[in-house]
Amino acid sequence: MAVVRWAAPGGGGVRHRVAGVNAIDVIQAKRDGHRLTEEQVDWVVAAYTRGDVADEQMAALAMAILLNGMDAGEISRWTQAMIDSGDVLALGDVGRPLVDKHSTGGVGDKITLPLAPLVAACGAAVPQLSGRGLGHTGGTLDKLESIPGWRASLSEAEIAAQLADVGAVICATTPTLAPADRKLYALRDVTGTVESIPLIASSIMSKKIAEATGGLVLDVKAGSGAFMKTPDRARELAGTMVAIGAAHGLPTTALLTDMSVPLGRAVGNALEVAESVEVLRGGGPADVVELTVALAREMVALAGITDVDPAEVLASGAAYPVWERMIAAQSGDPSAPLPVAAHVEELVADRSGVLTHLDALAVGVAAWRLGAGRARKEDAVQAAAGIRLLAGVGDAVEAGQPLLELHTDTPEKVAGARAALAGGVLVSEEPAARPALIMDTLRS
Amino acid sequence: MAVVRWAAPGGGGVRHRVAGVNAIDVIQAKRDGHRLTEEQVDWVVAAYTRGDVADEQMAALAMAILLNGMDAGEISRWTQAMIDSGDVLALGDVGRPLVDKHSTGGVGDKITLPLAPLVAACGAAVPQLSGRGLGHTGGTLDKLESIPGWRASLSEAEIAAQLADVGAVICATTPTLAPADRKLYALRDVTGTVESIPLIASSIMSKKIAEATGGLVLDVKAGSGAFMKTPDRARELAGTMVAIGAAHGLPTTALLTDMSVPLGRAVGNALEVAESVEVLRGGGPADVVELTVALAREMVALAGITDVDPAEVLASGAAYPVWERMIAAQSGDPSAPLPVAAHVEELVADRSGVLTHLDALAVGVAAWRLGAGRARKEDAVQAAAGIRLLAGVGDAVEAGQPLLELHTDTPEKVAGARAALAGGVLVSEEPAARPALIMDTLRS
Repeated sequence: MAVVRWAAPGGGGVRHRVAGVNAIDVIQAKRDGHRLTEEQVDWVVAAYTRGDVADEQMAALAMAILLNGMDAGEISRWTQAMIDSGDVLALGDVGRPLVDKHSTGGVGDKITLPLAPLVAACGAAVPQLSGRGLGHTGGTLDKLESIPGWRASLSEAEIAAQLADVGAVICATTPTLAPADRKLYALRDVTGTVESIPLIASSIMSKKIAEATGGLVLDVKAGSGAFMKTPDRARELAGTMVAIGAAHGLPTTALLTDMSVPLGRAVGNALEVAESVEVLRGGGPADVVELTVALAREMVALAGITDVDPAEVLASGAAYPVWERMIAAQSGDPSAPLPVAAHVEELVADRSGVLTHLDALAVGVAAWRLGAGRARKEDAVQAAAGIRLLAGVGDAVEAGQPLLELHTDTPEKVAGARAALAGGVLVSEEPAARPALIMDTLRS
Repeated sequence: MAVVRWAAPGGGGVRHRVAGVNAIDVIQAKRDGHRLTEEQVDWVVAAYTRGDVADEQMAALAMAILLNGMDAGEISRWTQAMIDSGDVLALGDVGRPLVDKHSTGGVGDKITLPLAPLVAACGAAVPQLSGRGLGHTGGTLDKLESIPGWRASLSEAEIAAQLADVGAVICATTPTLAPADRKLYALRDVTGTVESIPLIASSIMSKKIAEATGGLVLDVKAGSGAFMKTPDRARELAGTMVAIGAAHGLPTTALLTDMSVPLGRAVGNALEVAESVEVLRGGGPADVVELTVALAREMVALAGITDVDPAEVLASGAAYPVWERMIAAQSGDPSAPLPVAAHVEELVADRSGVLTHLDALAVGVAAWRLGAGRARKEDAVQAAAGIRLLAGVGDAVEAGQPLLELHTDTPEKVAGARAALAGGVLVSEEPAARPALIMDTLRS
């Protein structure tokens, strides 16, 4: 027999669940439009990494985040929780200021290949850790793997030694760097939850902050061939990442750049390596040179290097020997011939006029269908597959003039590539010009 | 060398994925606020049932449905897809019109127990297939399992025979009825996606339509002890279910009823069976009688029975022999004593006044903590645990007067139950009355 002292009027709501953090509470909080607490963010990222939060629970949370958003404080905490899920790269003193670059990716975007040796030639060290591509063409690693002998995987000690010696490393990300991000990205990829700016921004920035770089330059692309289709979305992503950088003490600069037409004249793996080498030797397409130099200028500025102009270094060809040493340091043979496709077809203009439309997405899908990209993680890419553009937007062309070359080892894939290009390449009477490449610069 | 005829100006967007339905497209469509096509709904429900859509994909889709909704056409199709995932009950002709009832559940809601025999006594047949409870108290099956010998599982032939013979069956749902719903419900339960009206409505209605009942009466509850906390939400759920019934040719009536205070005076398993027997013998609490009769009137009306008043049948005690036969047909002994708790405590008022507040959720959580409900599917419930209410809202009480009895076999759980009641039971100076029980009726 017990006497209960009734609480004062106004009591009432009794929570069904006991106090503490659990997955359903976190999901429901975000589902219902609330801000996640720091405790909730820390717990859910760590618990997901160790398997205490199930994939289906994280998928529901990711969808709630995609639809209801996270504010700057939540995003910054989420980024830190992903960094804390693994190790931070311990490179020690490599004798040069560290500065890195990340691109959100686009069709023909091989800029990392000339950029890393160029910035190293200017006196900084570039620790470029990359993932595998799942997009229209292979990722940076797939491109470099078209070079005979080149290997993507380096130990932390090898990375540090190469940075001290050569000044540039492009290699696979190490397995202990932000493992939460790797697990979460694979989940988002199959659950329709990739397209969340807070999740994209924290994914990119967690890996770059865990790399322990001293400065970061972002190339955030907008247009049909980019992940962000509109400049507004690209600007939002860029601003979110610059804010994360600021919150974590990482000086960060973002360029907003156009991806409505392919970058350069080569789309593929070996084809892009060849074009990068042209640029490193002082030639190459004007747009690739322009963007490489613009990004390099921001990187050397963040590295505190004020007495070198990357444009002059690139034009002089002085970055090419750095490229050779960077490739050779990872067992690649920079002078070996690159793979050549077994089958090449030209596509020609059906009438005379101006090339007014060369859609980045159409070209990207066509290259992907030719074998340059992969549909699933476990697929291999064809080193030689891809597209060479023989004319650019605004060029006058004549009926019968070749506009594109389709390269593949599997000719049965050409029909699919052609279908992808239908409507994406137009010749008309009107004048046209390539859209401005660099749209804006955001600094933290 | 091939000549490609470029498509007319205005072409452009090329889809990355090949045509056809896949999980990511369906998720993205709902995520982006689009209506799912009939093909998408059919495919995703069937593919999830057979395991071709992963749990994490369905979790993301469920969250997108919860946040972006489904329209009446999508909900109706989703319901049909869940029905089509399994078998429809083939009861044949049982010699009486079939009519069923479903309650969204509440604290002290034992109405099915007196209702099924009462409607059978009026001349209809009630095929009441139930699931296990995960709420504050056990489900209907848990309550009946407190009767010695009673078994919940029947074959389809046994169900048909008992309907023909007794007119009422309360048993476990068969495994082949809407298996998509069973799988999806378990997923929603752990992913924070239970609270979606389209998913709740389609879950309930798919099982009831697959039962092949000829009419359906819904008891949709609103208030602290109900799943729907507000009358507006309850009305939305009721309207959605009535519309599904109409779309599937199932005459459906929904009562909106109050669940801000517990129903009747008993909350638990055996305690609720005892109260149900009182009602079947012509006695019992007025609110339980009122709701039992109101639901029975709607059910007999849907069954086309016009010459019997369920109120008279219930008051006469004529439904009680049907109860005895229903229990006995499932191996139960209706005259065996019910389990009694090892430990009972009274809670008394700390001052004189009026019982103004008796919160359904507080009482429900207290009963659950005493052992009447389960926290996880695999938990057992205590047959004798629960709460008896010794006073009702609006009753004058004196200091020291017992207000509630707490029943449990595990006295160490009493402290938690008391904590749940704090603030949920109030005695004050002001007059008070039980809220109106039946708030509205919706008919298809």
